[in-house]
Amino acid sequence: MKALQIHDLKIHVGEIPIPEPGENDVLIRVRLAGVCATDLEIGRGYAGFNGTLGHEFVGIVERGPAALKDKRVVGEINCVCGKCDMCTSGLANHCRRRSVVGIVNRDGAFAEYLTLPARNCHIVPDAISDEQAVFVEPLAAALQVMQQVKIEPRMQVAVLGTGRLGLLVSQVLAKRKCSLTAIGRNPNTMRFLDRKGIRTSLLDDVKSREAFDVVVDCTGSPEGLPIALQLVRPRGTIVMKTTCKSDHSVDLTALVVNEVMLLGSRCGPFGEALSWLARKDVDVSEMVTSRMKLSDGVEIMRKAAQTDQIKVLVQIGD
Amino acid sequence: MKALQIHDLKIHVGEIPIPEPGENDVLIRVRLAGVCATDLEIGRGYAGFNGTLGHEFVGIVERGPAALKDKRVVGEINCVCGKCDMCTSGLANHCRRRSVVGIVNRDGAFAEYLTLPARNCHIVPDAISDEQAVFVEPLAAALQVMQQVKIEPRMQVAVLGTGRLGLLVSQVLAKRKCSLTAIGRNPNTMRFLDRKGIRTSLLDDVKSREAFDVVVDCTGSPEGLPIALQLVRPRGTIVMKTTCKSDHSVDLTALVVNEVMLLGSRCGPFGEALSWLARKDVDVSEMVTSRMKLSDGVEIMRKAAQTDQIKVLVQIGD
Repeated sequence: MKALQIHDLKIHVGEIPIPEPGENDVLIRVRLAGVCATDLEIGRGYAGFNGTLGHEFVGIVERGPAALKDKRVVGEINCVCGKCDMCTSGLANHCRRRSVVGIVNRDGAFAEYLTLPARNCHIVPDAISDEQAVFVEPLAAALQVMQQVKIEPRMQVAVLGTGRLGLLVSQVLAKRKCSLTAIGRNPNTMRFLDRKGIRTSLLDDVKSREAFDVVVDCTGSPEGLPIALQLVRPRGTIVMKTTCKSDHSVDLTALVVNEVMLLGSRCGPFGEALSWLARKDVDVSEMVTSRMKLSDGVEIMRKAAQTDQIKVLVQIGD
Repeated sequence: MKALQIHDLKIHVGEIPIPEPGENDVLIRVRLAGVCATDLEIGRGYAGFNGTLGHEFVGIVERGPAALKDKRVVGEINCVCGKCDMCTSGLANHCRRRSVVGIVNRDGAFAEYLTLPARNCHIVPDAISDEQAVFVEPLAAALQVMQQVKIEPRMQVAVLGTGRLGLLVSQVLAKRKCSLTAIGRNPNTMRFLDRKGIRTSLLDDVKSREAFDVVVDCTGSPEGLPIALQLVRPRGTIVMKTTCKSDHSVDLTALVVNEVMLLGSRCGPFGEALSWLARKDVDVSEMVTSRMKLSDGVEIMRKAAQTDQIKVLVQIGD
């Protein structure tokens, strides 16, 4: 089968065997996948990953238990042992021995097939199209912010960064009726939020300092945190979604003096994300800016890195 | 009067007028003061402070309201407006217009006299000696950790750094009967904890990674946070007490991937600290390693920077 792989930072479409599912796994025929900022960071060396890229996908279960056979599914990306101290204390996403689809020790979804533990699969309701379903994984990551921080209607909230994830986080938080400002540098992506009636501000225009109760760093850049520290009020909260290859060089005096809470935030609840999409509480269709084919190879990654792009989809098979 | 001052990073003993207390202030004749790591950082340019150094002190109220007149007091260091959004929301220590004794826009305690708002003063019970009372401010800062994080008996807790603050935080947390390890590099200061039956470990000997529920960074160094991120478990908490002049260059991937909570922590409850000292719940007397005089000038700072020193006290007057 064809797979878009990275080896020693070189990205190419390779021909590899169809994977053999283990005892508790399913074999999924991938229909559609999405490119995420993490994929681009992996292309720059983040996580030191070698193998098939991609972790946002929807596909059909070709082999697996009867309950899943022939069903259209999305899949949680953390594949866990079920036995370590994290798994047995309700923190399975932090499993000590986990592999992560397309990120850590496990082939990803930019391929004709992938295997996945059956318990990682969520059946996609008919009300959700393939193009929407590809957003379940990043939308879950956006919803995770609300699992970690109580966002109340009176709160001043800033979403920093209006890329793929920032647009999802902004839409999710806008539902909480907080006083929300999405802060970015890219007018292309900010227009998307303008059209939805979500207040946006160019970073250079933000005058208020130490004013926001909550700042969510979705910049994907080491520049995000120093800015977030300027924006957040004393005893406020910064939620950090940014993972990137480079080190952060940052003066943390404000974090200590202002007693700021900085919360790392990663994967989120798939079930919730499916419900949001089924209810059309969040609009993802307009976020799709390009549709490509697996055979486009490294061009897929080049396209996704362009500033006029939001979500680049990869159609697998015909 | 004599005062140990810093101007443009030059430290010297100057002769300045006795300050005139404002309407709601008291005039305090300082008896004894202590040197803190923050004083040393200010000497390196932290906070860009110019004026009289020092914020740990005990003294006698010479002018002020009857309730305080001639009383022996310690003083909270944040002098606040009482009117801004922080003051009116119960976060007065984060007052937008505050001055801070010996740190921000207000002369400090390495002087024969200082003025302070009357409401900042706490009368010292007779059971507490001057040498103990000087520790009220840093002990309050240590107790702040427990105000911010619930430390439970079953928890694995690491205190990183066995300097002045680390020794206090370790003693405070040891009372919570958690599984505590004080991790340091300086055998001189670690012996102090060994004698109290608090487990210590040289940093190089710590083998467990991503294992501690809570790590308190008391290193006072930008090296502290990267180490804390290696030690803390997924979804664990790092309390950061370190303020220093240099930027932190740090890979924050582990913070995001492990969804760590990083909490800045500064000043704490003076009343609590006085109670701890009066009950002798914490031993500070053995932490005093040198007693100097104000006229020793810059030598005081040099002495306090030596690795064999814990707390250097400065006797004011005769």
